[in-house]
Amino acid sequence: MRIDINCDMGESYGHYKIGHDLSLMDYISSCNIACGYHAGDPVVMQETVNQAAKKGLGIGAHPSYPDLQGFGRRSMKIPTEELSAMIRYQVYALKGFVEMAGSKLHHIKPHGALYNDIAKSEELSNMIADLVLNISPEITLVGLAGSVTEKVCSSQKIKFRGEFFADRNYDNEGYLVSRTKENAVISNPEQIAERTLRFAKTGEVRSIENTPLKLNATTICIHGDHHNSLATAKAIYKTLTLSGISINHE
Amino acid sequence: MRIDINCDMGESYGHYKIGHDLSLMDYISSCNIACGYHAGDPVVMQETVNQAAKKGLGIGAHPSYPDLQGFGRRSMKIPTEELSAMIRYQVYALKGFVEMAGSKLHHIKPHGALYNDIAKSEELSNMIADLVLNISPEITLVGLAGSVTEKVCSSQKIKFRGEFFADRNYDNEGYLVSRTKENAVISNPEQIAERTLRFAKTGEVRSIENTPLKLNATTICIHGDHHNSLATAKAIYKTLTLSGISINHE
Amino acid sequence: MRIDINCDMGESYGHYKIGHDLSLMDYISSCNIACGYHAGDPVVMQETVNQAAKKGLGIGAHPSYPDLQGFGRRSMKIPTEELSAMIRYQVYALKGFVEMAGSKLHHIKPHGALYNDIAKSEELSNMIADLVLNISPEITLVGLAGSVTEKVCSSQKIKFRGEFFADRNYDNEGYLVSRTKENAVISNPEQIAERTLRFAKTGEVRSIENTPLKLNATTICIHGDHHNSLATAKAIYKTLTLSGISINHE
Amino acid sequence: MRIDINCDMGESYGHYKIGHDLSLMDYISSCNIACGYHAGDPVVMQETVNQAAKKGLGIGAHPSYPDLQGFGRRSMKIPTEELSAMIRYQVYALKGFVEMAGSKLHHIKPHGALYNDIAKSEELSNMIADLVLNISPEITLVGLAGSVTEKVCSSQKIKFRGEFFADRNYDNEGYLVSRTKENAVISNPEQIAERTLRFAKTGEVRSIENTPLKLNATTICIHGDHHNSLATAKAIYKTLTLSGISINHE
Repeated sequence: MRIDINCDMGESYGHYKIGHDLSLMDYISSCNIACGYHAGDPVVMQETVNQAAKKGLGIGAHPSYPDLQGFGRRSMKIPTEELSAMIRYQVYALKGFVEMAGSKLHHIKPHGALYNDIAKSEELSNMIADLVLNISPEITLVGLAGSVTEKVCSSQKIKFRGEFFADRNYDNEGYLVSRTKENAVISNPEQIAERTLRFAKTGEVRSIENTPLKLNATTICIHGDHHNSLATAKAIYKTLTLSGISINHE
Repeated sequence: MRIDINCDMGESYGHYKIGHDLSLMDYISSCNIACGYHAGDPVVMQETVNQAAKKGLGIGAHPSYPDLQGFGRRSMKIPTEELSAMIRYQVYALKGFVEMAGSKLHHIKPHGALYNDIAKSEELSNMIADLVLNISPEITLVGLAGSVTEKVCSSQKIKFRGEFFADRNYDNEGYLVSRTKENAVISNPEQIAERTLRFAKTGEVRSIENTPLKLNATTICIHGDHHNSLATAKAIYKTLTLSGISINHE
Repeated sequence: MRIDINCDMGESYGHYKIGHDLSLMDYISSCNIACGYHAGDPVVMQETVNQAAKKGLGIGAHPSYPDLQGFGRRSMKIPTEELSAMIRYQVYALKGFVEMAGSKLHHIKPHGALYNDIAKSEELSNMIADLVLNISPEITLVGLAGSVTEKVCSSQKIKFRGEFFADRNYDNEGYLVSRTKENAVISNPEQIAERTLRFAKTGEVRSIENTPLKLNATTICIHGDHHNSLATAKAIYKTLTLSGISINHE
Repeated sequence: MRIDINCDMGESYGHYKIGHDLSLMDYISSCNIACGYHAGDPVVMQETVNQAAKKGLGIGAHPSYPDLQGFGRRSMKIPTEELSAMIRYQVYALKGFVEMAGSKLHHIKPHGALYNDIAKSEELSNMIADLVLNISPEITLVGLAGSVTEKVCSSQKIKFRGEFFADRNYDNEGYLVSRTKENAVISNPEQIAERTLRFAKTGEVRSIENTPLKLNATTICIHGDHHNSLATAKAIYKTLTLSGISINHE
């Protein structure tokens, strides 16, 4: 039995250093590397790719709307054709660093507002599906489990991987509880690990009202920018591997 | 007998449109496409690459210092390691568009202040030579004829192509007459064509004081952003081909 | 009898030159100067302000969403507090250049997508109204005639000036015909001048279906970036002044 | 007896938070606020200015070369006219926030590479001196003690304040020991406080080779981005005030 654990990385920029990328790499199997539009600069991209390649991680591009000041967290109404070219620009740049490190681009996971906008839109999901097929049919698209993107990928025979958010509560419909509400985020590492183990074994998670939910997810998303990110990553890794589940991006 | 003619292209940005790229493509054999740091955006890059691929041009990356406002024309003191990553970012992005268009990256030609800084510096010439070798030994580096870069490429067995500037006057030492001086630029298309033909046949150009100069150049650089760029390109193309010289990037 | 004519200016950026600012200044009474977020750079801002001050124009700030690549034409979901700070940054910068030129900031006119978003939103209209009051109650806010912004300004005793778009067709409800439709834009200078004269005299314009519309507008907006912008500006200026209407920003 | 203590502030940017601005404000008398070119965004600028105004600090603009990625630490060859417009843009924007907070712009201190380039160049020192005079003769220019800028300001009757760097070692000629060398930076808070007290009382500092140096400095520069910045600030503040020296920006 095995499952993938992914984490956003390479989010530093110039003088600004964030995250604990190198330490976290021992407890995950794949990473999503910022491409300079919401975070990351060429030096950070190159270093993060090189470290991830050494650790044997599945390396993914993490493209975004062009908005460093907003960290890619706000939606922009960009024509689909132009957005496609912007995403390609970012993905191609990252792919170059990955190949130079002797590895292959493993997946693409859109970032922030772009992630959410694609999840809900058939036009945008088709756009990114075309782009993935165009670059290489071996590349996996990582997105919201149960989203429009999942359906589009399924109909186009594109590899899709839905995400289970380890530290987020779900409502009864299977949506994430908004960050504006209390209890949106779970912060206790042991609790997160327990919940993740249950999900990994059963494909099920309890909603915030304790209703069992089935999630079609094959990768566990953890976050690297909290003060207890490292403790959480270790707890999940230890709990899963002790239960005989291997952490693997393939 | 054959020679290459190159021209900078893809220099529009968003709302700002400059150059006559599509028209000029019939009179050149290779182009240097801006990569977003001094000019160009992903839409412009993609369109320019696609058009150039259809015309069968040798497509090159035209990386720059990060300075859209200064059009890459001012020197920046960037650590070599960081500059290398910045150039890779640009080249990889362009290379992606080129491969998507079914073509191959043909060459790299640094832009503006970066071109001049590399031409004079052994450290920077080694940096870009390493980068070329690293990406692919089939890629040609285009630079200043007789520069430090030429020597570095020669010692490292890297394909190097020196440039003859069709519309610029040279001094007796073989350097370009500074743009701050009168007669730095030649504007008459017929005169430029004549001068280029002589160079193509003999490898020689007359300096501004009428001294014959030997130039080790195998590509003719023309400019696409003047009001008479198209007339000049046509005159050169017609004059050379009528004399039996084929325009060819290989 | 008198009316104001306004035009967007200072939209060049670095190497990219657009518009005919200096020539147009003789035929308008006020100008809206880009502040670096969608167009304009500090050099362009300073020069345009200095020229406008010499001509005695009413000088306005033309703030935008931060989007040079999209020329400020696409909406961004930016928290109101942050958007307020962004607009202040732009307005303060321009105000500094205006005061250095011995003039006073006359008005603020939001640009592009920001203009449209503010016109429809009470929250955003209140935000910009607060900002205007805060900077100086003598400053006029220029916006869409009949918009939410007009109502907000009226209730807060803020000077508001609604715009008549000289070269755009209106539908029967008084909205601009979308640029995606035929006949959205009128291009004949004489026709534009006639239509503007009628409006200046009567406050009325004929809709695209020939219905008379009353517009609460006190400034005429002309565009400076078309190939016949100068001819149109001259035609309007001549037609209005010959009819005894003075062009005046006060 | 009194002296000024200044610190760079407002260096966060969007998602990236650095410094301990609010805590440090109790131990300094003036601050230099980033203006968006090397750090800071409009939200950060506005908040930092408002907090500094409440604390009664002397608020200064901290303009830079346009280089967020390099944190303004690398020199750029920008024409003086253009650089002047860029600095004005930044200073005007900050001045607007300061006036909106009910305060007055107290000083201008160039940042990073711009600071060093101005210190050495008569042309650049004249440029910034003109700009200061132009904005208001009440504004102080803060720069390197003993620099070309100091001489230019003296001859033009501009208020100049030279800096004593509390945590940096000096060589026998009065220059800062390069950060590339060991012992360039002093890290012990008590040692820094002692050294600063001696300087405040005598105008003298011991060089790294124990030679006494006379420094024409009237403001003490401390840094806010080290892990022990707060401890150092407290130690200096306490040591000076206990010795009867008041911390005052006037």
